[in-house]
Amino acid sequence: MQKIAYTCIIALLISLSQMAAAQVSKPNIIVFLIDDMGWQDTSLPFWTKATSLNQRYHTPNMERMAREGMKFTNAYAAPVCTPSRTAMLSGLNPAHSGITNWTNPEKNKSTDAPDNQFLTANWNYNGLSPVAGIERTAYATPFPQLLKDAGYFTIHVGKAHWASAGTPGANPYSMGFMVNVAGHAAGHPQSYLAKENYGNITGKTSSRAVPDLEEYYGSEVFLTEALTREAIKSLEAPIRNHQPFFLNMAHYAVHTPIQGDERFLKKYLDAGLDNTEAAYASLIEGMDKSLGDIMNFVKQKGIEKNTVIIFMSDNGGLSLASERGGAEHSQNLPLKAGKGSVYEGGIREPMIVKYPAMVKPATVANQYLIIEDYFPTILELAGIKNYKTVQKIDGKSFVPILKNPSFRDDTRALIWHYPNKWNNAKEVGINYFSAIRRGDWKLVYNQRSGKKELYNLKNDIGETQDLSAQNSKTVNELTTLLGTRLKSWNAPMPILKSNNQPIPWPVADN
Amino acid sequence: MQKIAYTCIIALLISLSQMAAAQVSKPNIIVFLIDDMGWQDTSLPFWTKATSLNQRYHTPNMERMAREGMKFTNAYAAPVCTPSRTAMLSGLNPAHSGITNWTNPEKNKSTDAPDNQFLTANWNYNGLSPVAGIERTAYATPFPQLLKDAGYFTIHVGKAHWASAGTPGANPYSMGFMVNVAGHAAGHPQSYLAKENYGNITGKTSSRAVPDLEEYYGSEVFLTEALTREAIKSLEAPIRNHQPFFLNMAHYAVHTPIQGDERFLKKYLDAGLDNTEAAYASLIEGMDKSLGDIMNFVKQKGIEKNTVIIFMSDNGGLSLASERGGAEHSQNLPLKAGKGSVYEGGIREPMIVKYPAMVKPATVANQYLIIEDYFPTILELAGIKNYKTVQKIDGKSFVPILKNPSFRDDTRALIWHYPNKWNNAKEVGINYFSAIRRGDWKLVYNQRSGKKELYNLKNDIGETQDLSAQNSKTVNELTTLLGTRLKSWNAPMPILKSNNQPIPWPVADN
Repeated sequence: MQKIAYTCIIALLISLSQMAAAQVSKPNIIVFLIDDMGWQDTSLPFWTKATSLNQRYHTPNMERMAREGMKFTNAYAAPVCTPSRTAMLSGLNPAHSGITNWTNPEKNKSTDAPDNQFLTANWNYNGLSPVAGIERTAYATPFPQLLKDAGYFTIHVGKAHWASAGTPGANPYSMGFMVNVAGHAAGHPQSYLAKENYGNITGKTSSRAVPDLEEYYGSEVFLTEALTREAIKSLEAPIRNHQPFFLNMAHYAVHTPIQGDERFLKKYLDAGLDNTEAAYASLIEGMDKSLGDIMNFVKQKGIEKNTVIIFMSDNGGLSLASERGGAEHSQNLPLKAGKGSVYEGGIREPMIVKYPAMVKPATVANQYLIIEDYFPTILELAGIKNYKTVQKIDGKSFVPILKNPSFRDDTRALIWHYPNKWNNAKEVGINYFSAIRRGDWKLVYNQRSGKKELYNLKNDIGETQDLSAQNSKTVNELTTLLGTRLKSWNAPMPILKSNNQPIPWPVADN
Repeated sequence: MQKIAYTCIIALLISLSQMAAAQVSKPNIIVFLIDDMGWQDTSLPFWTKATSLNQRYHTPNMERMAREGMKFTNAYAAPVCTPSRTAMLSGLNPAHSGITNWTNPEKNKSTDAPDNQFLTANWNYNGLSPVAGIERTAYATPFPQLLKDAGYFTIHVGKAHWASAGTPGANPYSMGFMVNVAGHAAGHPQSYLAKENYGNITGKTSSRAVPDLEEYYGSEVFLTEALTREAIKSLEAPIRNHQPFFLNMAHYAVHTPIQGDERFLKKYLDAGLDNTEAAYASLIEGMDKSLGDIMNFVKQKGIEKNTVIIFMSDNGGLSLASERGGAEHSQNLPLKAGKGSVYEGGIREPMIVKYPAMVKPATVANQYLIIEDYFPTILELAGIKNYKTVQKIDGKSFVPILKNPSFRDDTRALIWHYPNKWNNAKEVGINYFSAIRRGDWKLVYNQRSGKKELYNLKNDIGETQDLSAQNSKTVNELTTLLGTRLKSWNAPMPILKSNNQPIPWPVADN
């Protein structure tokens, strides 16, 4: 009988400890996503050495995060925002989802500029959809829905820009989020200034006016700060209820309009930057302050150990002279070009992961990865297995890297595909380009001319020396791999005006 | 030893059953709040007999709800919306909070019309605030915050209108809500039509454009329907997680602009109503359809028994000839006047409570109650005791009525106070009036003239026979009670232009 008593007590203890374990083992997950931030837009070097751009910016909280977590030196996104953001939510490469350019806030309107040679590709210009049958969308199960179904409290704060208004994907509440602050169909804020009500001014309000922040109207609270405060507010209840949360902290910063954040502006003007670049640097530092506030909040709440924070940007830094200071395409040096380009300046991102329960502090991972990898990674971190999605995921979990920064896989190929036209600026990898990276080799494919360039990133991160002539075998291999993959995804291609047919997927010359 | 085993098993069972009980005993609570809906704007009679207005409208779901719950024939709100809504959230009578008129979406701007005799009273025209020290606001703890602190999942959908933009009270996320869809500082929608993006049209967007509903832009989804779908969407997670929820389903309907809901319009035009009144009737039926959808959803999810649904309107039906069809102030007959008035047409509301676990079906309660009573009632229903608020609550729980429809208290006095000027329409209890009801007696006090009227509502619901001359003792008693109460609350009064002083609180003649 004593045995029964013990058995009973042990069973009770096991059951209680299992309950506790179940609660503890689900980590909180924060994706801290910046808009249009370049690889060099930080005082934290992501290269082998600090560059002069690294000297320009002040991001002490990114530095701290890297000391406390893992820095990724070869993290990639798509060349523009919606493709990156929808790749993250769907696990699909943009060439596979057909969401290759940013979406218009208005439905059924491609954002592509007119071109002499090409008509608009058959891309999904209404964006991502959690519902089947919506015209010009990619139908997919967004991972926040799977987190929500598994009991997570899912929060979106800031820029969404996954789909056009008039479709379900424009609505964070339809994409698996339980809370939405300020997310909608637009890709940038009408204004960062509370004095301008973030753009909500009768007669002047456009589809870019930021919703949901009326509390701050007329005040001095910069958009980045308002979003941070709202994010922290939204975390109170799940933390108190011991409910695991996912926060998509998606800042509008540092996208245009480049408006100064007065809290940080003066020091950059004093340092001799022009007005635009000083304002840009203040947007960066304001974003970094937000990162610090959120890390501090997580620590203060005693959930630091069990909270994953992932810092990422959605594409390279803007490098058009029309909107930035300095010479065209100098803003991401030593990287070539910038936003919109498949060269490194357009796709290589600052990325850091802090997760004390798994990730060793002050580590550096050099393995390359890409933004569609976030989908399976986040679900694996959340312990969600055998989930069902309507799409076949292209991304690959980077949990093995988090566990082992020396992880190396040179056989995997990453693909970028932009069969679109942004503008008429000098086409340095911008407008009608594709690219593929495997190991240190990167092939850049010009859809307009068929020209192929080959770079070895190990020695030539700036993509200055085209090695294609000397390495035709590698060129052919990578071209075939790129073409085969694009074909298997039925990737959209530009349409020739002359015959109204899409141009062929890339093929090797022989 | 066997004893120990049994003790252990019993302890385990008790602990498990307590956990289950804790989960089951917290009811879900839905407040289904309509804007500007009059007491007669339904096919469900709230009087001793059906009136011709009851014949005009079709509200089958209200009828069903009354069959399944309790109908209140003497439920009251304030004469206009913000005072009612903030009284509900704070438990404070508007004369006590100083929020006596509706708030301007813009901060620091009274909504009072100019007057020859009076300057604007010192009312809190920035509305309610959950934070101390905000100018021209009433500082109070909103009950959704207490529900949230107690583990409730708190959702706001639809019209908020508790405070001006630029103050925390404009933000549902600062008022204790964890989810907000479409709530902000404005008091009515710019448009009910998805074809007009609910008012969000570049160049035309005003502060009344409805936020957060981009998913429906350009479609046929009427605002009432969109809000219903979003509310149902927001309930999925808490229901699945067995978390009790509070839903503030606050429809923009049936406030102006009176736009037809095409799903229901034709039958009212066919019945001979003019365009305006047919559109109004269609707004009513659209709202009723929403009620049905939500009741069906709750039933389908198997949580009907443990879910409280409270149907209420925030003030009387609009009865200005400029915006409604028919003769001025005929729209609430047999009640006198309408929105803005302290006569019954402005304050008497359709109210129904369905709560199978507590409320007997098809019951009728004749006890009078008022909207600030919602605060303590909802917290009592949620089993939350000894809560702390910064304000002293004026409302009284009506749980005793829910348990016993025959409950009777003729000693309690209800107070209405509108020291404001809405417009220059015929002042039938509109602009500068107060009123008090005790038992069947109601005194109406004209702040401009000092005149007192006395009605016996039992025999004269239309307030047609002023009995003040014959009942001076009652007049004096009620005047003293009204004046004493207003003075103790330091209630705002109109300010005389002649001496720049507020007029005195009411005093008895002798």
